[in-house]
Amino acid sequence: MDAPVQSLPLPPAGILSLNTLASALTALPSVSFTPLVGHPKWLSLVKATFKDPSGTERTWELVERIHSKPAAVDKPNPSADENVTDAVDVVAVVNPSKSPARFPAEATILLVLQFRPATRKWTLEFPSGLCEKLTGVGDGLVDPGESPRVAALRELREETGYVGVISSVGPPIAYEPGITSSCSRMVLAKIDPDTAENATPQPAREADEWSLKTVAVPMAGLLDSLNGLAKDLPELRIDSRLYSFAAGLAHRL
Amino acid sequence: MDAPVQSLPLPPAGILSLNTLASALTALPSVSFTPLVGHPKWLSLVKATFKDPSGTERTWELVERIHSKPAAVDKPNPSADENVTDAVDVVAVVNPSKSPARFPAEATILLVLQFRPATRKWTLEFPSGLCEKLTGVGDGLVDPGESPRVAALRELREETGYVGVISSVGPPIAYEPGITSSCSRMVLAKIDPDTAENATPQPAREADEWSLKTVAVPMAGLLDSLNGLAKDLPELRIDSRLYSFAAGLAHRL
Repeated sequence: MDAPVQSLPLPPAGILSLNTLASALTALPSVSFTPLVGHPKWLSLVKATFKDPSGTERTWELVERIHSKPAAVDKPNPSADENVTDAVDVVAVVNPSKSPARFPAEATILLVLQFRPATRKWTLEFPSGLCEKLTGVGDGLVDPGESPRVAALRELREETGYVGVISSVGPPIAYEPGITSSCSRMVLAKIDPDTAENATPQPAREADEWSLKTVAVPMAGLLDSLNGLAKDLPELRIDSRLYSFAAGLAHRL
Repeated sequence: MDAPVQSLPLPPAGILSLNTLASALTALPSVSFTPLVGHPKWLSLVKATFKDPSGTERTWELVERIHSKPAAVDKPNPSADENVTDAVDVVAVVNPSKSPARFPAEATILLVLQFRPATRKWTLEFPSGLCEKLTGVGDGLVDPGESPRVAALRELREETGYVGVISSVGPPIAYEPGITSSCSRMVLAKIDPDTAENATPQPAREADEWSLKTVAVPMAGLLDSLNGLAKDLPELRIDSRLYSFAAGLAHRL
């Protein structure tokens, strides 16, 4: 990652490329980690107790997002949240541009780089975000809130400034089923870089997205690119959904 | 998912197919969820505090696996765990078989179905598991323990009974970087179904894997198959790494 590779097309100003990503990995903040005492605001530890079919009682520790769902506590097997999704992950593919000044003439994917305290590293991920208003309502019913489709276009615009068109919305998928209930939907969005509304993208990032930057990576060779970044940049961690997508893309049937 | 599709080849006895998966979704256990009090055994809630480059103090709640890493608490920005991986996810591709009695004559992928208390559902995932012995050592150094390669072959054999050959091992990837530090590596394994050692696969599942079953799904059309399962079976949740891999596989560059 030392010298720019001349053959790679450059994305527009303000967007990082494979060549410039390393330069954005400034010193990581010095973080103090302490046991969380008192009432957590976002996460709660929950103990699940059940009997397996043989009658053996089993327990499992898990963590729940407090803000996104009715508390699971004292609501055995809630069914009202079947269709609730915490978040969306946006596979944002930029079509080849006819104008090299705007975007490369090959398909690229828009990713986001940000400091993630939980990983202690910079992480490279799909643009993503929580669906808004997924709060429980008094009688146990769930306000379906923002649809994954709306959330995906909003997050894409807020995080990268680009306006996309949605091709598909996947089903709820589990982030880390061993320990959390949280889930997302994968939304595939196509971006036409040559439209007027995408001429001067203006991200509208939230205060807690102070570290967020947009990265454009060619779709061709994505897995090799991610493997190269992971090898060269120990302070970078790649998200597992992004890596898995790239592994599928590279797989020969 | 009602009637078997005659054109789909059947995997060996004891392994579920797309046609038979629904029949394995027996009633979910009745689970009681309670706030976790006292000392958790597996998970801990941690508060991260840091200053962003503008000098603004920020906090973040996160959850750590207790058993897999030295406690983060009071160890700002630990660097000794750079190469520690909590788990492996095994992309286990079964080569087309020359013997239809053993396995289909088309490439299939081995998945596992299990009840996951955190999701309150049956989940369909890559065979996966924690790397063993990744415990902290007194002086702060980390015993590197079981390699991802060894862990992948062990988990594959324990969960499905099959012996594979590893093609590649990916870098550490973040499970859910918004809230957890845990990470895995993706290991690609090829399985030759026609070898003697794979003639009569014998899983060796652990007690807490009481619900685990092996599922074989054709690689061709994997994303469509997953979308179909998610649509037809509300009590099933698909893992996000598996879904992302399938989405990449289906994506046309």
